[in-house]
Amino acid sequence: MDKEINIERVKKIFNNLKQESGTHSPSIKTVLQEIPELKIDVDACFLSNPYATDLFIENMKADFPTYDDLRDSLEFYPPQNSDISKIIGQTIAVKKENIFVGNGAIEIISATLKRFCGNRLLLPIPTFSSYYEFLNNDQEIFFHNLKESENYVLNIKNLIKDVREKKVDSLIIINPNNPNGDYINYDELIDLLENCKNLDCIILDESFVHFAYEDDSLKLMNYYELINKYSNLVIIKSMSKDFGIAGVRAGYGIMSSDRVSELTNSGYLWNISGLATYFFDLYSGTKFRNKYEIVRKKYIMNTLMFRSELSSIKGLKIYPSKANFFLIKVDNDELDDFGLRLLVNHGVYIRNCSDKIGLKGSGYYRIASRSFEENVKIIKAIKIELA
Amino acid sequence: MDKEINIERVKKIFNNLKQESGTHSPSIKTVLQEIPELKIDVDACFLSNPYATDLFIENMKADFPTYDDLRDSLEFYPPQNSDISKIIGQTIAVKKENIFVGNGAIEIISATLKRFCGNRLLLPIPTFSSYYEFLNNDQEIFFHNLKESENYVLNIKNLIKDVREKKVDSLIIINPNNPNGDYINYDELIDLLENCKNLDCIILDESFVHFAYEDDSLKLMNYYELINKYSNLVIIKSMSKDFGIAGVRAGYGIMSSDRVSELTNSGYLWNISGLATYFFDLYSGTKFRNKYEIVRKKYIMNTLMFRSELSSIKGLKIYPSKANFFLIKVDNDELDDFGLRLLVNHGVYIRNCSDKIGLKGSGYYRIASRSFEENVKIIKAIKIELA
Repeated sequence: MDKEINIERVKKIFNNLKQESGTHSPSIKTVLQEIPELKIDVDACFLSNPYATDLFIENMKADFPTYDDLRDSLEFYPPQNSDISKIIGQTIAVKKENIFVGNGAIEIISATLKRFCGNRLLLPIPTFSSYYEFLNNDQEIFFHNLKESENYVLNIKNLIKDVREKKVDSLIIINPNNPNGDYINYDELIDLLENCKNLDCIILDESFVHFAYEDDSLKLMNYYELINKYSNLVIIKSMSKDFGIAGVRAGYGIMSSDRVSELTNSGYLWNISGLATYFFDLYSGTKFRNKYEIVRKKYIMNTLMFRSELSSIKGLKIYPSKANFFLIKVDNDELDDFGLRLLVNHGVYIRNCSDKIGLKGSGYYRIASRSFEENVKIIKAIKIELA
Repeated sequence: MDKEINIERVKKIFNNLKQESGTHSPSIKTVLQEIPELKIDVDACFLSNPYATDLFIENMKADFPTYDDLRDSLEFYPPQNSDISKIIGQTIAVKKENIFVGNGAIEIISATLKRFCGNRLLLPIPTFSSYYEFLNNDQEIFFHNLKESENYVLNIKNLIKDVREKKVDSLIIINPNNPNGDYINYDELIDLLENCKNLDCIILDESFVHFAYEDDSLKLMNYYELINKYSNLVIIKSMSKDFGIAGVRAGYGIMSSDRVSELTNSGYLWNISGLATYFFDLYSGTKFRNKYEIVRKKYIMNTLMFRSELSSIKGLKIYPSKANFFLIKVDNDELDDFGLRLLVNHGVYIRNCSDKIGLKGSGYYRIASRSFEENVKIIKAIKIELA
């Protein structure tokens, strides 16, 4: 009985917090401030590779044995945007003139939408809400509905057809998509770009691409060279997820050089912190990159194992994903409280997706793959709740 | 003879670096990369309180004994902008609805210029170049020339006259001004605001106001309550200078609530890093603020002593300043190489201001007050060069 009251109270506070956070989940910190009796054991809302965070911290320890050694990064102005582009460019084999460094991907998303997209944008849904929230008043967004009957898999031919029918000038693609993880492979992507050459702007958000793969080698996918062929393309890369450093705020966009100039000339000058500059220094080193490859693949293997365990549970459906998370639909969740029960009864926090436009009805949740140990806990909790 | 060749080489490289850095000084790091034989002992370009940096690092050591303790700040998404406004608001007694938190003041400057200023802006010169560089194409900037004959002191009556004559809709004031440090006192400021009520936007950049004072108590000046009376006012506050944390990227703007909403609704969502969030947590604590007051006053006393020493040197003129730096004019600097000689011969790096619009001719330099020991070195170097 106690537990039921608990859930109702939590549900109420949660709904309030949710409203305040807009279309994003309230952060763990905020949740715990408001519901101190909660114990959150696993944050499976959070889409990031924990092994990569370990690696970053390990490097900080080696490079800055004490905080006094870190002083320069805290005290002085970081280098200008173009100085950091240079370092990144050498690493990813892209001309620095084509790289704009951002204070997180979100800064680049916002600037690209406002400055480089036209007035008619097409966006597959379900999606990441910022893509339809950060628009100018004169921009109109058209949704391309991914279908439940097709498991929310994007059909390139249908998308191209929709681009033409809706006469849009800009297109937004997240690959793999968030919240479902659907992945467009290289050949399909080329097909899409070839058919959209006349558009003003194509945003390709690759925030989760390090978790994707096209064969058993798990080779890192890289689309950057496409910028040389498709000048309307803007590739956006967050560092938060794959490198596990969301708090550092680091990302970059690959785009035509005139677009980069427009941004750097209009105020994005010292937008990268000292710590983000340090990250990009690391990122440019072969030693770090080699170690990163190990934790990247380890995490993917982890995620594959997690998927396999999830698949064995009755009462839920998993949609196709090559990201580090899974969209699931839970049977008989009319009360929309499966997630709250996981939270209250097991301390496992997952993302309720019933507010996502493009997903109809209750029972939709997005579950992040975490560390091996945390994934075991998530599976155990779900099994108990669905037993 | 060697030394002369040295200076010529340095001059050449320096001019190249300067061109690449636009209207800002090349950073020490960049300078040293290109001219490795240089030894920079004192960076007196850099306008920040070193004692405050000490204080910040001391707090980090206590709060995060190891980097593992810092993990949450690196790994997780920081709170949303409005959550941080809440913390700041309680501290500075301003409603959170009136606070926009920025990734450094520059982000707020850029957004304010583009969104809230009209098409005709008035800006006293000499000034911080970003104020005329980050404009939209349809915005026209008018300069209000501060006069050498008046020691570059702003005359409020003349400024108000100019606002009217030039029919501007927006006005930009840096108080104390950069690069000369001229300070508008409270009564004059009110006079100005009263006479400019009809403008769309008045930017008051208080990045250096913690170093100013109106009497011997050195009391911290605070203009925030003016926002309640003058809704066209946007007060911009960098944390870089007074708190010595330029690498952390933190600042805030105080403005009308509708302006804050416009910004937070258009993409500035997770623009504050985990470390900047930690800083604002510190900033809201009485214990930290009390300790900060001590290092703030210590640094002002330092700066006053520095000024007194500078004044005793023949061959240079110091302009009135209540900031942590001084604009000087060196006699007989036709070759424009006084700064380079300080750098090459003494390792003291100061800001050559001959590129600043509003300052005619060579010999103008801006010198930052640094730690006591560094100031001693600066004075010694200048005395030798001007002997």
